[in-house]
Amino acid sequence: MTALDPAVGSLPTELVSRLQELLGTEAVLLEDEQVQEFQDPYWIPGDSTYRGSAVVLPASTEQVQAVVRLANEYDVPLSTSSQGRNNGYGGASPRVGGSLQLSLRRMNRVLEIDDELAYAVVEPGVRWLDLHEALEAGGHRLRLSVPDIGWGSMVGNSLDNGVTYMANGQDFSAACGMEVVLPDGELLRTGLGAQPGNPGWHVYKRGVGPVLDPLFMQSNLGIVTRMGVWLQPTPEAYQTLSLNIEHDTDLGAAVDAVRDLMLAGLVRGVPCFYGAPLNGTIIKDLPMQPGTAWTDEQLDDHGRETGLGRWSVRIALWDDPDVMAVKRAKILQVWSRIPGSSVYEGPVYTPDQYGEITNQTEKVQIGIPHLDLLDLFPPFVGHVEVSPVAPMKGDVVTEVVDIIRTTLVSNGFLAQIGILAISARSAAVVTGINFDKTNEDMTKAALSVAHNLINELGEQGYVPYRTHLHFMDDVAGHLSFNDGAYHRFLGKIKDAVDPRGILSPGRYGVWGSQGSERGNDR
Amino acid sequence: MTALDPAVGSLPTELVSRLQELLGTEAVLLEDEQVQEFQDPYWIPGDSTYRGSAVVLPASTEQVQAVVRLANEYDVPLSTSSQGRNNGYGGASPRVGGSLQLSLRRMNRVLEIDDELAYAVVEPGVRWLDLHEALEAGGHRLRLSVPDIGWGSMVGNSLDNGVTYMANGQDFSAACGMEVVLPDGELLRTGLGAQPGNPGWHVYKRGVGPVLDPLFMQSNLGIVTRMGVWLQPTPEAYQTLSLNIEHDTDLGAAVDAVRDLMLAGLVRGVPCFYGAPLNGTIIKDLPMQPGTAWTDEQLDDHGRETGLGRWSVRIALWDDPDVMAVKRAKILQVWSRIPGSSVYEGPVYTPDQYGEITNQTEKVQIGIPHLDLLDLFPPFVGHVEVSPVAPMKGDVVTEVVDIIRTTLVSNGFLAQIGILAISARSAAVVTGINFDKTNEDMTKAALSVAHNLINELGEQGYVPYRTHLHFMDDVAGHLSFNDGAYHRFLGKIKDAVDPRGILSPGRYGVWGSQGSERGNDR
Repeated sequence: MTALDPAVGSLPTELVSRLQELLGTEAVLLEDEQVQEFQDPYWIPGDSTYRGSAVVLPASTEQVQAVVRLANEYDVPLSTSSQGRNNGYGGASPRVGGSLQLSLRRMNRVLEIDDELAYAVVEPGVRWLDLHEALEAGGHRLRLSVPDIGWGSMVGNSLDNGVTYMANGQDFSAACGMEVVLPDGELLRTGLGAQPGNPGWHVYKRGVGPVLDPLFMQSNLGIVTRMGVWLQPTPEAYQTLSLNIEHDTDLGAAVDAVRDLMLAGLVRGVPCFYGAPLNGTIIKDLPMQPGTAWTDEQLDDHGRETGLGRWSVRIALWDDPDVMAVKRAKILQVWSRIPGSSVYEGPVYTPDQYGEITNQTEKVQIGIPHLDLLDLFPPFVGHVEVSPVAPMKGDVVTEVVDIIRTTLVSNGFLAQIGILAISARSAAVVTGINFDKTNEDMTKAALSVAHNLINELGEQGYVPYRTHLHFMDDVAGHLSFNDGAYHRFLGKIKDAVDPRGILSPGRYGVWGSQGSERGNDR
Repeated sequence: MTALDPAVGSLPTELVSRLQELLGTEAVLLEDEQVQEFQDPYWIPGDSTYRGSAVVLPASTEQVQAVVRLANEYDVPLSTSSQGRNNGYGGASPRVGGSLQLSLRRMNRVLEIDDELAYAVVEPGVRWLDLHEALEAGGHRLRLSVPDIGWGSMVGNSLDNGVTYMANGQDFSAACGMEVVLPDGELLRTGLGAQPGNPGWHVYKRGVGPVLDPLFMQSNLGIVTRMGVWLQPTPEAYQTLSLNIEHDTDLGAAVDAVRDLMLAGLVRGVPCFYGAPLNGTIIKDLPMQPGTAWTDEQLDDHGRETGLGRWSVRIALWDDPDVMAVKRAKILQVWSRIPGSSVYEGPVYTPDQYGEITNQTEKVQIGIPHLDLLDLFPPFVGHVEVSPVAPMKGDVVTEVVDIIRTTLVSNGFLAQIGILAISARSAAVVTGINFDKTNEDMTKAALSVAHNLINELGEQGYVPYRTHLHFMDDVAGHLSFNDGAYHRFLGKIKDAVDPRGILSPGRYGVWGSQGSERGNDR
């Protein structure tokens, strides 16, 4: 066995040959430029802390198993991504520099679409764009809950607790039933998939015995090679509604109102609150570098000029037309009680009219994946996200928003905040910190303020729903109940199923005894 | 350290003394009669296969931790129940005879009720009856999703994948955030509870890093001592609707119709299909012993006489009155297309009218826990349940029902089947096999036919959503994908966190290396 210095990032020559033999030379990327394509696009230029050594692209589950076995044989850490579009949180980069990267982009088959039970089964390389295309091509009357940018992997996004916006996006409910390559190369099927031929694998979320699927979320305990995705039947009518709030002080009232509508079953999906100056149509005109934070007066002016106010809340209705009309009236009635509020109503669309939709707010809430947002960011802009979870209470969400704003503004950064109501009871306060990625000092300043903000929020009792590689150990450190019992328990599991610490050591702070030897900044 | 022969069921004297010292003598039950109260009430009389040796009743999490540490010290298997009302599946009995039993009945505090976010936090001894009482006493406008009999523990039921019927019952969605005593006595908090002071513990179902809560479902990896339970705000209007189907051949059409209504968001909660002759009001007049199966003609007659047909489907609406009116009309329109169907509509109740409700179908669907069903079973009747999961497709559900009927009827048993639509996409086909529990031969005959049915269903690709202790190894055996990869993976986790195999060895087929030594029938 040849030793690897993970900080250097060079692989044993013999391993490279065996990978090439296994996958074909074109599926083993070794050139600097090729490997760079699979790294965090916003990381500090020239810094190799989170840079992988090479990228392999297996085309089948069997090839994934074989790669995992080779990684064990040569004692090389292996870091997995699906499409690798985890931007703002580290992209496809490994937590441990020098890792061999395994990209699942080539495993891109839609394996099954079930019209009656409204689900699909996909490989991890399938993007929202791909499944949407398959649904359209097959004439299926099914909609796919999508996120803001359609280039990502459904599997990858689900495994990172990523949010989508239709009914199955609520409480991350879309994923059901997995096939997983374990750290020793063995193949596991979760839930009813553990029984050969059971037709319930992708429609029943438990199984018989302990339920494993969520153990593979934000995890390094296996590589998911197949997953069920629940879909929503195409509704007879579809409409978006937006609530605009003039005064920042009424954010709390809007949060409470949306929560109550969700609890009453009147609003489904994931409502989003966009704080000025975060709005799709105007982002590109905003200043991106430190020192350009706006004052409250500027934000008020901006809200008035755009007509969007300080906060804009978007929801959607997917219903029978009669049901929709009644729900709409109830929602507008509740919203009308919020001071200084106004409502924007999108058109009511029937399924044959979706082709006419051009507005990205309307596209995304009926499951039309797109890349429009990419055009809104000038090419020099990078971003890092700080996204604490908060209970859906107006005063609590307002407190979290205030902590974020105070820290960012005092450091000269614009606070671009979107509040995603993951369920009626909790929200992710997603904060994008933008910077000029071509400028090393600005990049470092943004990372530093993000780091401070993570820790400031941590001290106040909030942790993020998802975090950048660079902050994973910090966040794990905040999970300190009973001397870190959560991570001590996970460490035992990691050691038991991955004794060499081969799979993505350090991901979300899970190192295991062997993996921690590989952590080059611990 | 004193050795224990688990099959004999006598505890080391020194351990008994230390338990009495720790908990008080009144919390250590040793007398035969006392211990018998915590055994499967329907097991073969005089057979000690699943009989515990003694019962301890800790009153706090600290006491639970201390008991677990003692069990490790004396190498005694410890089997946990909450209220222990798991009837039809083994009650509170341990999988391994001779185990020390830990009952959580004394830990019965309601720790928190949050009106805005609509959740409660409970200890495992809290019954539905208790939380309902606390909600009423505190004047909370919140409803609790309950099962058919209100004497059970919310925690215990959730951990067994038990079903309740209101909106939070759908897809087992009520549980959120746990405190768990691990097999080494350490205390773990899941999700955001891992961060001291985080207000999101019981409102956000994930966390940062791998999600552990479902690992403790149908599991023996920890003892849950606290759990969040999501509640539903009291609706302005409440109504039950029942669809009666005259012909057995139209069951499939009804399944498809209910599924489509659920997928469209028109029906929430857990719809239930009751097959003749299973109906609350008439159960007590039914023959309970083998040899009394009814013919199809008798079942048809029975359906006509009672007006309930061959299948009766119950759902409920909880809504704003205007929304309810429109939904109701849509539902009735869809149902009217099913041949030979008729509809029974309950009254529309406002919250101040719930006190007038006497019908158990109406009680249960608005979260009024009751014990009415207990009166319907004559005292000599025992039952064992066989409850396969099936995708919500009419033809598949019909196939599963046919397998069950054929096996039961050919063995002379009445097929009492309830189909619970756990979500739009899957159902549990809950089959009660009734017998005269005072008659050993009949008890054995019922267990034998249940065993055959479990294996017949297993061969056809179906496993139960929950199973009796006696069939756990059989069911685990059907989870044979990749040489039992699911159980091999679980075995590694079990060994890592419970190296002595102390906690409930054998539960749902999870033994671990040490635990399997204790299995007295393997």
